Amino acid sequence: MTVNIKEPELLSPVKGIRLAAGASGIKKNGATDIVVIEIAEGASCSAVFTQNRFRAAPVLISEKHLAKAAPRLLLINSGNANAGTGEDGYNNAVQTCEIAAAASGCKYEEVLPFSTGVIGEALPVNCFAKSLPDIVTTLDEDNWLLAARGIMTTDTIAKASSRIVTLDGTTVTMTGIAKGSGMIKPNMATMLAYIATDASIKSDLLDESLKAAVESSFNSITVDGDTSTNDSCVLLATGRSGISEIDSKNEAYQIFCKTLQEIMKELAQAIVRDAEGVTKFVEIKVINADSYDDAKTVAYTVAHSPLVKTALFASDPNWGRILAAVGRAEIAKLDVAALSIYLGDVCIVQNGGRAESYTEADGQRVMSEEEIIITIDMNTGNEQATVWTSDLSYDYVKINAEYRT
Amino acid sequence: MTVNIKEPELLSPVKGIRLAAGASGIKKNGATDIVVIEIAEGASCSAVFTQNRFRAAPVLISEKHLAKAAPRLLLINSGNANAGTGEDGYNNAVQTCEIAAAASGCKYEEVLPFSTGVIGEALPVNCFAKSLPDIVTTLDEDNWLLAARGIMTTDTIAKASSRIVTLDGTTVTMTGIAKGSGMIKPNMATMLAYIATDASIKSDLLDESLKAAVESSFNSITVDGDTSTNDSCVLLATGRSGISEIDSKNEAYQIFCKTLQEIMKELAQAIVRDAEGVTKFVEIKVINADSYDDAKTVAYTVAHSPLVKTALFASDPNWGRILAAVGRAEIAKLDVAALSIYLGDVCIVQNGGRAESYTEADGQRVMSEEEIIITIDMNTGNEQATVWTSDLSYDYVKINAEYRT
Repeated sequence: MTVNIKEPELLSPVKGIRLAAGASGIKKNGATDIVVIEIAEGASCSAVFTQNRFRAAPVLISEKHLAKAAPRLLLINSGNANAGTGEDGYNNAVQTCEIAAAASGCKYEEVLPFSTGVIGEALPVNCFAKSLPDIVTTLDEDNWLLAARGIMTTDTIAKASSRIVTLDGTTVTMTGIAKGSGMIKPNMATMLAYIATDASIKSDLLDESLKAAVESSFNSITVDGDTSTNDSCVLLATGRSGISEIDSKNEAYQIFCKTLQEIMKELAQAIVRDAEGVTKFVEIKVINADSYDDAKTVAYTVAHSPLVKTALFASDPNWGRILAAVGRAEIAKLDVAALSIYLGDVCIVQNGGRAESYTEADGQRVMSEEEIIITIDMNTGNEQATVWTSDLSYDYVKINAEYRT
Repeated sequence: MTVNIKEPELLSPVKGIRLAAGASGIKKNGATDIVVIEIAEGASCSAVFTQNRFRAAPVLISEKHLAKAAPRLLLINSGNANAGTGEDGYNNAVQTCEIAAAASGCKYEEVLPFSTGVIGEALPVNCFAKSLPDIVTTLDEDNWLLAARGIMTTDTIAKASSRIVTLDGTTVTMTGIAKGSGMIKPNMATMLAYIATDASIKSDLLDESLKAAVESSFNSITVDGDTSTNDSCVLLATGRSGISEIDSKNEAYQIFCKTLQEIMKELAQAIVRDAEGVTKFVEIKVINADSYDDAKTVAYTVAHSPLVKTALFASDPNWGRILAAVGRAEIAKLDVAALSIYLGDVCIVQNGGRAESYTEADGQRVMSEEEIIITIDMNTGNEQATVWTSDLSYDYVKINAEYRT
């Protein structure tokens, strides 16, 4: 199931971006598994990649190509992660770039490859060779939803978001897609996300806006605590809206950043709403902490606790498990006597113990909802952080026990 | 289910230790829920407690009493953790010590209280008042198994171990019991463990032997990564064997430590063999690491990965998930190209990629076993650490989703 999410109906095309998708046979069930995103000349690109030490071959190559040339083509396959595949995997990814470059008429270094799916299996290069020449003939500005569907693996729904804003009197569009449902605890990026805009922006500001937006979106979600080997997030700015380049932190830049953050937060939350086996969408907000890092550590410790996650699945207001998870968070100091915890609007823990006003019925009322906000008030400082997560259900086990069978 | 564990048949009594157990009504199903361990005069005691910041009332009181007097009575209840219960919980625990002291004829400070069960519910003191006077009349040297059963909560089997060794020509007995099945990632101690010996040993050596044995036993297991608020481990030495006091790190001390480690490792492993929803008993051994801490961090990261745990449940040799977990372990450096991983005797990863000799059939053979050894060779140093864990099954979710219903 999913929690309060529908497939987007309308996605705004972005001038300078064309997309195509097709089924190449990488996925055994014949589903779409190759997506191509063509980028107009002169666009700028910023990207962040997984911090897992085992970085998949396409991640290594994308980083290398980005340093050499402005990308003209993103080549994404689902169904095979091409991770843990050593030198052969690297060579296979290089070959797919060559095939894509030949099919689309750009240079090999102008292709950024991305892969998602099973780890440790050889990437079937022949699938790319057979299908890419046909796929590129279908490139179109209006294929965003098709692309969002094409990058899915255990996802049950396509994730995408669009905004149209006015910057300096010019209408600018921003559209993004993402995928991910398991092995989700992004660190610097998420599974796969692509956001494009026809705004024009200086490349250091593009980088800065992306890093800031990633921190409060993809780097603030978790499904299972497992950081993927393939996480990648790409932001493209084609400049085709006709707006003059954003070259300082002016008002246009502020609106740009705000819009980017909205889209990325929506995409990141969409991943949690479609998390493997999800039945609850949970926001964990840690407030009044000594530092942002402390707040985030506490939020993630609660979000990763299997006992908290199974209690959420059971709609059980078992606040003792939340309290125990807070108590084991690896932060420098914790004032137990100052701590309060809220389930929605219900105070469950006050001064480190069960709140006097708390009744099981109140807790039950909140826990029965599909969307739950847990607020942890550390009462020691002024910093805060928010993390979004899912519960741990039978279906999570089922999906991951049967993934390769 | 459990993995390769049977209830112990023969437990050796320890001179100077008598035990009793009874059903007081704390557990709704009428099962045994109070255990009393009486300690002869002159015994020495060492104990370690949870490092969770939320330490349950009985943990706070036990530490306080230990600093004041040599304990004469351990008072243990199951079915209620008396954690997150604030001042009322503290006062309730004090009252139970007073009741136990009155019933057994010792002083209030000579009682150490321990609780395990649901967090956040008021401890029913009246259950202690009603039952303790009767329970203490049944104190007996031969009640170790009864006690092991009496401290169980979600445990499905009693956990205990005995050894008889010769120290300095004198026969010495050591017997221990433990409980725990969920909320298991002990930090400095485990859920509840009590080990007694009739050896005589200087108290600083007793402390040292306990800390060393805890590190390689209870502090090396995990079920769900959730450190409990009530973890306690107590080591008693009554001196009643007639052996002269061990007052240096002589041969007798070495045998004492080795015996203690054997018993504690057996008890710690017994907790994993009876972990909530367990179908696999997994040893994760990290070798040739830069430091012991690095080795343990890597081992725990793999042991806590829900994706690794569900693959273990499915008997799926999904080595990519092991590799991804190693890659996200928070250690200072990792030489990806040097890394090898073995499933049992099968090399699955070599030089950071799939081993050339590896076949899915070989991996499947190992993963189909109930006991699995995963060896991770970092190839960068000389240190190693071993962690024991269980898999993540439907039953784990079931047990924890239904725990309070």
